[in-house]
Amino acid sequence: MKGFNDKDFLLKSDYGKRLYHEVAAALPIIDPHNHIDTASLAVNKQFENIYQLWVQNDPYKHRAMRIYGISEALITGNEPDYEKFRAWAECFPSTAGNPLFHWSCMELKQLFGIDWILNTNNAKQVWDIANEKLSKGNFGALDIVKSFGVELLSTSDDLTDTLEHHIVFAKQQNGITCLPSLRADSIINFNAANFFAWLNQLQSQTGVSVTDIDTYQLAIINRLDFFDQAGCLLSDHSLDGGFTFSAVTKLDATELFANLLISKKLADNELVQLQSYFLDFLGKEYAKRNWVMQLHIGAHRFTSTVLRNKVGPAGGYACIGNTAHIPSLCLFLDGLDIEGLLPKTILYTLNPADNAAFASLTGSYAEDGVKAKVQYGPAWWYNDHYEGILQQLKALSSYGLLSTSIGMTTDSRSIVSFIRHNYYRRILCNLLGEWVENGWLPNDWDFVSELVKNISYHNIKNWLTK
Amino acid sequence: MKGFNDKDFLLKSDYGKRLYHEVAAALPIIDPHNHIDTASLAVNKQFENIYQLWVQNDPYKHRAMRIYGISEALITGNEPDYEKFRAWAECFPSTAGNPLFHWSCMELKQLFGIDWILNTNNAKQVWDIANEKLSKGNFGALDIVKSFGVELLSTSDDLTDTLEHHIVFAKQQNGITCLPSLRADSIINFNAANFFAWLNQLQSQTGVSVTDIDTYQLAIINRLDFFDQAGCLLSDHSLDGGFTFSAVTKLDATELFANLLISKKLADNELVQLQSYFLDFLGKEYAKRNWVMQLHIGAHRFTSTVLRNKVGPAGGYACIGNTAHIPSLCLFLDGLDIEGLLPKTILYTLNPADNAAFASLTGSYAEDGVKAKVQYGPAWWYNDHYEGILQQLKALSSYGLLSTSIGMTTDSRSIVSFIRHNYYRRILCNLLGEWVENGWLPNDWDFVSELVKNISYHNIKNWLTK
Amino acid sequence: MKGFNDKDFLLKSDYGKRLYHEVAAALPIIDPHNHIDTASLAVNKQFENIYQLWVQNDPYKHRAMRIYGISEALITGNEPDYEKFRAWAECFPSTAGNPLFHWSCMELKQLFGIDWILNTNNAKQVWDIANEKLSKGNFGALDIVKSFGVELLSTSDDLTDTLEHHIVFAKQQNGITCLPSLRADSIINFNAANFFAWLNQLQSQTGVSVTDIDTYQLAIINRLDFFDQAGCLLSDHSLDGGFTFSAVTKLDATELFANLLISKKLADNELVQLQSYFLDFLGKEYAKRNWVMQLHIGAHRFTSTVLRNKVGPAGGYACIGNTAHIPSLCLFLDGLDIEGLLPKTILYTLNPADNAAFASLTGSYAEDGVKAKVQYGPAWWYNDHYEGILQQLKALSSYGLLSTSIGMTTDSRSIVSFIRHNYYRRILCNLLGEWVENGWLPNDWDFVSELVKNISYHNIKNWLTK
Repeated sequence: MKGFNDKDFLLKSDYGKRLYHEVAAALPIIDPHNHIDTASLAVNKQFENIYQLWVQNDPYKHRAMRIYGISEALITGNEPDYEKFRAWAECFPSTAGNPLFHWSCMELKQLFGIDWILNTNNAKQVWDIANEKLSKGNFGALDIVKSFGVELLSTSDDLTDTLEHHIVFAKQQNGITCLPSLRADSIINFNAANFFAWLNQLQSQTGVSVTDIDTYQLAIINRLDFFDQAGCLLSDHSLDGGFTFSAVTKLDATELFANLLISKKLADNELVQLQSYFLDFLGKEYAKRNWVMQLHIGAHRFTSTVLRNKVGPAGGYACIGNTAHIPSLCLFLDGLDIEGLLPKTILYTLNPADNAAFASLTGSYAEDGVKAKVQYGPAWWYNDHYEGILQQLKALSSYGLLSTSIGMTTDSRSIVSFIRHNYYRRILCNLLGEWVENGWLPNDWDFVSELVKNISYHNIKNWLTK
Repeated sequence: MKGFNDKDFLLKSDYGKRLYHEVAAALPIIDPHNHIDTASLAVNKQFENIYQLWVQNDPYKHRAMRIYGISEALITGNEPDYEKFRAWAECFPSTAGNPLFHWSCMELKQLFGIDWILNTNNAKQVWDIANEKLSKGNFGALDIVKSFGVELLSTSDDLTDTLEHHIVFAKQQNGITCLPSLRADSIINFNAANFFAWLNQLQSQTGVSVTDIDTYQLAIINRLDFFDQAGCLLSDHSLDGGFTFSAVTKLDATELFANLLISKKLADNELVQLQSYFLDFLGKEYAKRNWVMQLHIGAHRFTSTVLRNKVGPAGGYACIGNTAHIPSLCLFLDGLDIEGLLPKTILYTLNPADNAAFASLTGSYAEDGVKAKVQYGPAWWYNDHYEGILQQLKALSSYGLLSTSIGMTTDSRSIVSFIRHNYYRRILCNLLGEWVENGWLPNDWDFVSELVKNISYHNIKNWLTK
Repeated sequence: MKGFNDKDFLLKSDYGKRLYHEVAAALPIIDPHNHIDTASLAVNKQFENIYQLWVQNDPYKHRAMRIYGISEALITGNEPDYEKFRAWAECFPSTAGNPLFHWSCMELKQLFGIDWILNTNNAKQVWDIANEKLSKGNFGALDIVKSFGVELLSTSDDLTDTLEHHIVFAKQQNGITCLPSLRADSIINFNAANFFAWLNQLQSQTGVSVTDIDTYQLAIINRLDFFDQAGCLLSDHSLDGGFTFSAVTKLDATELFANLLISKKLADNELVQLQSYFLDFLGKEYAKRNWVMQLHIGAHRFTSTVLRNKVGPAGGYACIGNTAHIPSLCLFLDGLDIEGLLPKTILYTLNPADNAAFASLTGSYAEDGVKAKVQYGPAWWYNDHYEGILQQLKALSSYGLLSTSIGMTTDSRSIVSFIRHNYYRRILCNLLGEWVENGWLPNDWDFVSELVKNISYHNIKNWLTK
């Protein structure tokens, strides 16, 4: 019987244990995509209590509490912090089997040395121990991130973001790199309620008066250059469930954009066309700057209007949407490829029924000298659990070249989520270790440990080097 | 080498064996959804021979025999019972690997103490032994159901069903509860050949003359109340492959229904609209009565017209249809949720490529104090096998909270199918046992055995308590 | 620690080892679908070097090299053979985890007795050793195929193919049967650039002047009879991603075909209709000749235009397309079944998210005396790896009858790919062996070894017997 959450957690094979402890564990972390608040790093934000660090802004935990039937007042409402922490503690044992259970146990152990299973009986003790540590002054946001061995992280930032915190952070020389990346959704959310407010902001920020499609593109380019100067290496689009792509001429796009400026709204098919045009435009701009293009495909965010009204658009109640429309995806990438302006691309899917298709796409576009130009990205969001990670690794190795994978990214808002690199590396090492022990891979330490090093660290490092 | 179908069948881990034998095995069975014939229970129907008990009405077996190439005359035709039994025996060894093989071996062993692999050599002996037992008088339908430890079962009944057998059964005080549940498909099958015959029956039964949408709703409500008084706790819709939902106003629905009464037929898009309207109407009525709403999604029932003509619409030749349209499903549930009238809901999918999406939906709707208001139901129909059950459990735990699951239901026409709760519990216990032995769950007996109890019995019991 | 690629490769269970070595290994190979060049067999083609035998025409390897970032000049370009071989050797270690890694190691070992992991250090030695053997004169294409124990193989041939090499080969009495099979895509690719050129060839070949649909059908029948006389047992259609079927009358088809002859192009919906008509027509013609109909469903071949222009339409850069449209598939098969002219059919899917649906379709059509009239074919193309084969076997056994499976086919252009029958049989034997050792199947040697024999050899042999 293996111990729970001990040093060999998730590691069954002896070869896998060795791979993890001797190779993977000590490698620095590069996290190319997350939603960390840079300001909190720049000021090394202190936390009043474990609730504020650990529960307050974590939609994964909120979601579990809802499934468990906790009152929303105790999830995102105005109850006192301790009561909300206790509600999470009440829910916690019921998460057994969900990745939250593993992550949370790992986090409590690594951050606070606590290896109990959180519940209502020990909630007060955990609260006291954790808060005591948090109050010591060496437990700020930056301290925590550094404690995970993070070398580089890349946040998600709107085109109109001032990036002021990134600029400050860069000057601090903290021994850690925190770069902005472009969350580009606002640019093409033409029918969003706040699109024109956002557009005004863009205009005042750039000094470009947007009167037609050309001036809009000019304003965008202005900001892309700004991001580029601030060290941006990646962009990111959320192409939600139902995403389709339709080739459209500049002439048609020009007319559609003119109509948008007048009528403030596009019909569904017009929206697809204008978005397609701008995805193509942006993809090429990314390629020109040697940025990586990330496509997060397949979320369905319109589930409960009740929850949307209560907790906002990203409160953890989205579900997995339908599988991706492969011809659309190919049409989009092909349009860029034809002009020699396909950027390095990472495809993420929220629906694991897409795993094989996405893994197969890694063999559909190529560039001399670039390893896995189109990456099948790590198990995203709800898939970021043992089974999901394992299936992603198996799909990638079966349909592509696992050895060229850029590995894990957290995509998290939480600074404690970097533990998931640890989680991922354990699963990777165990899988490779099993393959060796089963005689599926040669028992050649240099060969196999090289795989671990590359997938955990070197591939992403090389990939992001401009 | 483990023995086949012995007491530790499907149990590999020692912890899993203990969980099964000490915790799961003795728990009563609650089976919220099946197609048992209540009349046979009310009269404790005796069976002439094992064919009539075991093969005659089992489309799973008929399907296997067809794949094996048995003549239809020996499957559903007029050949003598023994010949048809022998044909099944001839096919039987070829089912190795299919759940029928396991189920059948378990059934023969549990009911008749027979642990041979049925084949043409032993068919006559099995026939004789089984028939001898069936003739003893203590082997009626009710006796058999009770022998499995069933506490409550809930059948599937049309809105126009008299429920007479349920009423008789309830009065018998048999130490077992057999409740009706509403199979609601007839209500919205507006284009079915027999819709207007069915509507006439509804009118005569309720005394309501259906002249428009309002009177139709009135007649429905009349019967819903009748079902409610008869103890109905659940409804059930079959939303076959290709199901879409479209929000529609009462005004439009009124007009569509008026047209239907005149023209007796709706166009495809009109059908979707009127069905959507009535799904919304019914969902709210279920919520008002605190019924559970079951949605069985994704069957494709129009495969072979030849077989449809030979053996009727439910002869076991349906296939798995395309994956569900997630936006439609959300639109339906959201419409109910917005009005505070989303009933407790169980989502079943026939296409396992939907597993992750459906499991993720458990986190998309919530009600204070209700555990897993939207359930991702157990592996349904063709998925009810080792791999299917395992994948459902893994998907639910990975994307939701396994601890809140309401566990297994048979959805079977056969009274011997309650053995599948045994099958399910073995798989569940083995999985949890492996998790403990691998160090994925803490080695805490109370904690883990509580999970088994809740998933096997208590969750569904609490869920069905009004 | 098991050895890599030793005699028990992929075999973990002792029972599985016995099944493989005592039963499966020595069975002859029947390979009903591949793309072997018959001419090379008829002349027992000699290979100048290992590159020409092993790398030159293998799109799997080309694809891996592209993912690895090798220059196209070293993949399909004009660099010297050794340089291209060396590029493959450079890429090779990075394929660890991909089936190419296993296949290639098995091939080098079986053909040349080389059990190194190919890399740039040993590339020259491998080149020399292999070329030395190839130069001996007993290492021609036919010698190699025979060395794998192939009894019968069936190639893919266009309707207008002269089949001259098949005719020559048959006369040689080589102790091995090489039959043509019909690759029928040209017949219905009405919008293909070369359709009318192809049609001209058909007309001159048959002497039939195609002036309308009837004469077109006449010309086709003429060639089907020719194929039949040449021993053809199977046809094959590639129904790519997005395939839909639409019932259409002869009258409408006649008009559509007339329009096609005039305008040389069909609109998208017209194309679907005319293709549907001809699929129906062809299916019935296959049934009349007792041919097997193979449907290869779900490829998406339009990914990179750049690669298409560089390396042609089948250069290994296709991806997995969307899952199949089940109602269309059923409509197609049902139309044939209704008229009693559904041929024995093999369904292949490129998208493993279809596995369960396709496996379930084996129970939807039946014919007295025919085992698994509709087969769920072996893991196809990109799915032909350990996980893919395992998932196919599990899906087939869970949703159908594994015992009736016709087993493996290579679908390969390469004569060394017959090693994949070895690969498949190891996976099959290991799975069945595990089932026995876990107590899921009875420990009955005759029973289990019979399964192995039937799936590996006898089922396909019986199935192809007219």
